[in-house]
Amino acid sequence: MEENILELVRSPEDIRGWSVLQLEKLAAALRQVIIETTAQTGGHIGASLGTVELAIALHYAYNTPTDQLIWDIGHQAYAHKLLTGRYHAFGTLRQLNGLSGFLKRRESEYDVWEAGHASTALSAAMGMAMARDLRKQRYQVVAVIGDGALTAGMAWEAMNQIGQSKTNLVMVVNDNSMSIAPNVGAFSHYLTELRSAPAYTRMKQEVEQLLDSVPVFGGSIRKTLEKTKDVLHHAVLPRNVFEELGFKYYGPIDGHNLSDLISVLRNAQSVEGPVVVHVITQKGHGYLPAEQRPGEFHGPGPFEIQSGQFIKKRQPPSYSEVFSQTLIDMARVHPEIVAITAAMPDGTKLDMFQKVFPDRFFDVGIAEQHAVTFAAGLAVGGMRPVFAVYSTFLQRGYDQVIHDVCHQDLPVIFGIDRAGLVGADGATHQGVYDISFLRTVPHIEIAMGKDEVELQQLLQGAWDRPHPVALRYPRGATRGLDLKQPPSPLVWGTGEWLAHGRDVTIVALGPLVYQALAAREMLQGEGYDVGVVNARFVKPLDTALMTAVMAETQAVLTLEEHAIAGGFGSAINEWANQAQVTVPIFNAGLPDEFIDHGSVDYYLNLYELNADGVARRVREWLPLKKTAEK
Amino acid sequence: MEENILELVRSPEDIRGWSVLQLEKLAAALRQVIIETTAQTGGHIGASLGTVELAIALHYAYNTPTDQLIWDIGHQAYAHKLLTGRYHAFGTLRQLNGLSGFLKRRESEYDVWEAGHASTALSAAMGMAMARDLRKQRYQVVAVIGDGALTAGMAWEAMNQIGQSKTNLVMVVNDNSMSIAPNVGAFSHYLTELRSAPAYTRMKQEVEQLLDSVPVFGGSIRKTLEKTKDVLHHAVLPRNVFEELGFKYYGPIDGHNLSDLISVLRNAQSVEGPVVVHVITQKGHGYLPAEQRPGEFHGPGPFEIQSGQFIKKRQPPSYSEVFSQTLIDMARVHPEIVAITAAMPDGTKLDMFQKVFPDRFFDVGIAEQHAVTFAAGLAVGGMRPVFAVYSTFLQRGYDQVIHDVCHQDLPVIFGIDRAGLVGADGATHQGVYDISFLRTVPHIEIAMGKDEVELQQLLQGAWDRPHPVALRYPRGATRGLDLKQPPSPLVWGTGEWLAHGRDVTIVALGPLVYQALAAREMLQGEGYDVGVVNARFVKPLDTALMTAVMAETQAVLTLEEHAIAGGFGSAINEWANQAQVTVPIFNAGLPDEFIDHGSVDYYLNLYELNADGVARRVREWLPLKKTAEK
Repeated sequence: MEENILELVRSPEDIRGWSVLQLEKLAAALRQVIIETTAQTGGHIGASLGTVELAIALHYAYNTPTDQLIWDIGHQAYAHKLLTGRYHAFGTLRQLNGLSGFLKRRESEYDVWEAGHASTALSAAMGMAMARDLRKQRYQVVAVIGDGALTAGMAWEAMNQIGQSKTNLVMVVNDNSMSIAPNVGAFSHYLTELRSAPAYTRMKQEVEQLLDSVPVFGGSIRKTLEKTKDVLHHAVLPRNVFEELGFKYYGPIDGHNLSDLISVLRNAQSVEGPVVVHVITQKGHGYLPAEQRPGEFHGPGPFEIQSGQFIKKRQPPSYSEVFSQTLIDMARVHPEIVAITAAMPDGTKLDMFQKVFPDRFFDVGIAEQHAVTFAAGLAVGGMRPVFAVYSTFLQRGYDQVIHDVCHQDLPVIFGIDRAGLVGADGATHQGVYDISFLRTVPHIEIAMGKDEVELQQLLQGAWDRPHPVALRYPRGATRGLDLKQPPSPLVWGTGEWLAHGRDVTIVALGPLVYQALAAREMLQGEGYDVGVVNARFVKPLDTALMTAVMAETQAVLTLEEHAIAGGFGSAINEWANQAQVTVPIFNAGLPDEFIDHGSVDYYLNLYELNADGVARRVREWLPLKKTAEK
Repeated sequence: MEENILELVRSPEDIRGWSVLQLEKLAAALRQVIIETTAQTGGHIGASLGTVELAIALHYAYNTPTDQLIWDIGHQAYAHKLLTGRYHAFGTLRQLNGLSGFLKRRESEYDVWEAGHASTALSAAMGMAMARDLRKQRYQVVAVIGDGALTAGMAWEAMNQIGQSKTNLVMVVNDNSMSIAPNVGAFSHYLTELRSAPAYTRMKQEVEQLLDSVPVFGGSIRKTLEKTKDVLHHAVLPRNVFEELGFKYYGPIDGHNLSDLISVLRNAQSVEGPVVVHVITQKGHGYLPAEQRPGEFHGPGPFEIQSGQFIKKRQPPSYSEVFSQTLIDMARVHPEIVAITAAMPDGTKLDMFQKVFPDRFFDVGIAEQHAVTFAAGLAVGGMRPVFAVYSTFLQRGYDQVIHDVCHQDLPVIFGIDRAGLVGADGATHQGVYDISFLRTVPHIEIAMGKDEVELQQLLQGAWDRPHPVALRYPRGATRGLDLKQPPSPLVWGTGEWLAHGRDVTIVALGPLVYQALAAREMLQGEGYDVGVVNARFVKPLDTALMTAVMAETQAVLTLEEHAIAGGFGSAINEWANQAQVTVPIFNAGLPDEFIDHGSVDYYLNLYELNADGVARRVREWLPLKKTAEK
């Protein structure tokens, strides 16, 4: 049996003397491990297959970990993980207590930066470069950022500062002409132009080198010569946008050619000032199904390697699908409805909407700030925009929610997808802060149904609202309820008193209502008299219902899949104190800590938010309060 | 006496037949009113004097209000206000129940968009343009945006979508080479290059027109000719960045020349697709002191017109000054300390820091997202970054606070300036959400001192913290306490029990502690036994102190200058419920509504957060609880 080349790589140091041929073998081995592992665990296979050679070349050309290598979004960095001592642990990818699907500072000294959201690498790199310069240290700083990530404003903000500085910083643009979906926007179009002009660019670089080699003298001769060079630069050599912003530009370079990559990366190190290295890669490179269906293979679950088929349990439609389908049905009746995504047409399932109403669908790129204010502008223009966005990504558009939508009280509907725990994506993606950051803002109304039928009803109800509305719904599959019968409309702002109970009433938000009902089953059997309320609305609270509940029950337990700090239970507390309610309240929710990757069920159990946990909480809190004992 | 030309302008309609000479007279009259009014009321004189001719030309060339005119940040739009029926009300500018200092949709049908934060106009305009196209309406959409506002990422995100679209939208770049401070960044530098090349640009436009006039035929001839034109375009005419992004570019144009402005704006209307009109203006144009000191005249208080001297009561240093001075003192000892501002060196007073440590100061432009992550990068690199930012603008960097700083638990210090009510700037600038949106995030510590001595102590104490720290402090003057004696360090995480009281204890945050003490004085005289706690920390809460307080007092009133929803009082509620405290709690804070411009004192009184109000609340809440009556 052939020796496993990956066993030879305990750290990048081990490969630095290798030949290109050996490195190519290493690339093949890395690809195989990535394919075989993600086939089992799921994960971001597409982006990581695209950067195998780039990861090798970077660790070969740079003196990591002394040199600081920053990957924008860790999910393109599986090869980096494998090269930096994590080969044997790689089978635990994205599993509880296993390797993170992103980078983690505590996993490895080679992971100098953590990211799950796009477009942060340039700002981070600039910070590290300035720290290095101020501390008079000598390491290199190199950031790898996708072309898709460059659609985000914060990348522009960073380039603005980097380009003006004279600091040594290498920005590798990993250009696979995709973000998660195919890229959109004028700059992406522009990159395509750059990409398609390699010969022209090479010619230009040669002329520039020639000009740079003109010797300079002291005094006025020097000035004259420099001015002449400047004029020649401008006249002969139109600069590209990166150059206009103050970067040296190298590219485009074939991102799967190891010797080209290594040679350019080495050259870039000797340049003074900021440099762009424009590398062309292919998402999914080396695994045909991923090359052919890059969108589906962005971050799939387990799959069958031979066929490229996904191994899926048959399950009910996702909440995202229900949201999108409901929106399609509404849009047939209401021509004012338009849908917006920020680079997530697949994830939000708005691709379904796009197919039916291509003109009324907008993918604005990784640009949540713009997406929110664009929606506000559409609303001013008389449309009814719906922005479907993951809870965690709405954080990027928070000021715009406050300042542009809520302050102007415009009827924008936010579909807050992945609200609550998200599972394998882990700490950077949890949707557990949105209630806190939204409910403090005037005018917005916030609701979460207990299941897909209520999501449908809430979305339909949102149509009549003259205010901003945020509808939360979880990641993953619905309960599989019948949606064909259009449900009767629900009365906006009302909750649902599902069961009366004198000892304690569980006031739950979202699908946890079903956990509350199950907890009730257990507790009733033990002699507790337990009520259950499906709150549905975080804002406005159904205070009439809550007043009635408080009159009947001896204790209230609020239940939510969200941070306790400022969350739904906190809204109940505020109301209760203001209403001078004396019934004791206990807030069950998520603690004040970042929650890593691991299954939703695992964490619901750990934090006592499932039926068992809720029952346990009640028993501990109210040991003497059983009605039977009174 | 000469007729007042402004009396003739009831609406822009009235000026559309006027000669350039008449319009120039109008410009002079507008300038005079703006100077005379802001000399009394204070306000954004600099930007508004710069756009007098632009406002006239826009209302002259466009059919407002049918055509949609969007000003980025209303504070450049005083001439617009005066031209649209608000001349007689203009003396009430920025005063309670008077005209807003920004645009307001309910003030005028000509105000189609409200903004107090920069860089939202392009997104809004794109929304309106798409709404128009979808509804098959025919109005024009024109957005006026400052060059400073283009440093913000969301402007880039919007240009990305606009440039790719074929929609008719005019983007007027109001280039005064300033944001509030002089502009920074590579793109600003680039605009300067564009600005200084008018002849070249004109030549280029002529060649382009020539090329455009080449007739096109059908079939293959047409294709050949178009390709030839393309090649010529590229070879002869290097495109500027706006053109690379898909805009037609007109400029640079003298923004104080009415006939040039009108002619270009009319031309731009007939162009298909997005257009940039690059207009060069001078901040403060026509008022010498404002031309010479544009930074100081960005948004000053009242001033003496003849001398250009500000009319200032002698008052103690501002909180911003104390923060900056303390930071300077610390930075002398700790070379790791660096300071960051997002285009607000004057407002945050970090200009004081800049003077002492120019190399350790960074103004990143209107780029809060980047500022936060840049700080995170600096912290990874071993520095101790301090980002001083208005509470309202930190909303722009929220995701970065969560994802880059707190998730990686990096010791970044946030100086949260203008925390609480801000007065004349009104609803878009209130700093009343930050506790809610920050305290839900793990790892961050949040504090607010009762005065400048405690601000100083807290900033000094933050140095030792291994976590992110947010220090809040209000707008305006401190209490004038002696800061020369370095105060003894306070114990991190502790509050201060200033007075014991059995009937009720007021647990106050920040300078409202002094209102609580004054309320105590009143109530003690009436027989109430009132305690006062200076909470200081929102997170971590001083739960030992709170436990002791709860054991002694019959009721607690929390007091904060912040939204009740999710605020400081809410944190107390959560702790009390979790600790099963049965003492009734009442949360005093700001209601769930946007708070307009008006003095801080007015609103503290209105919302019963001053001494009188707090005393009133206690009397109403606890009518029978006087100790004397027991």
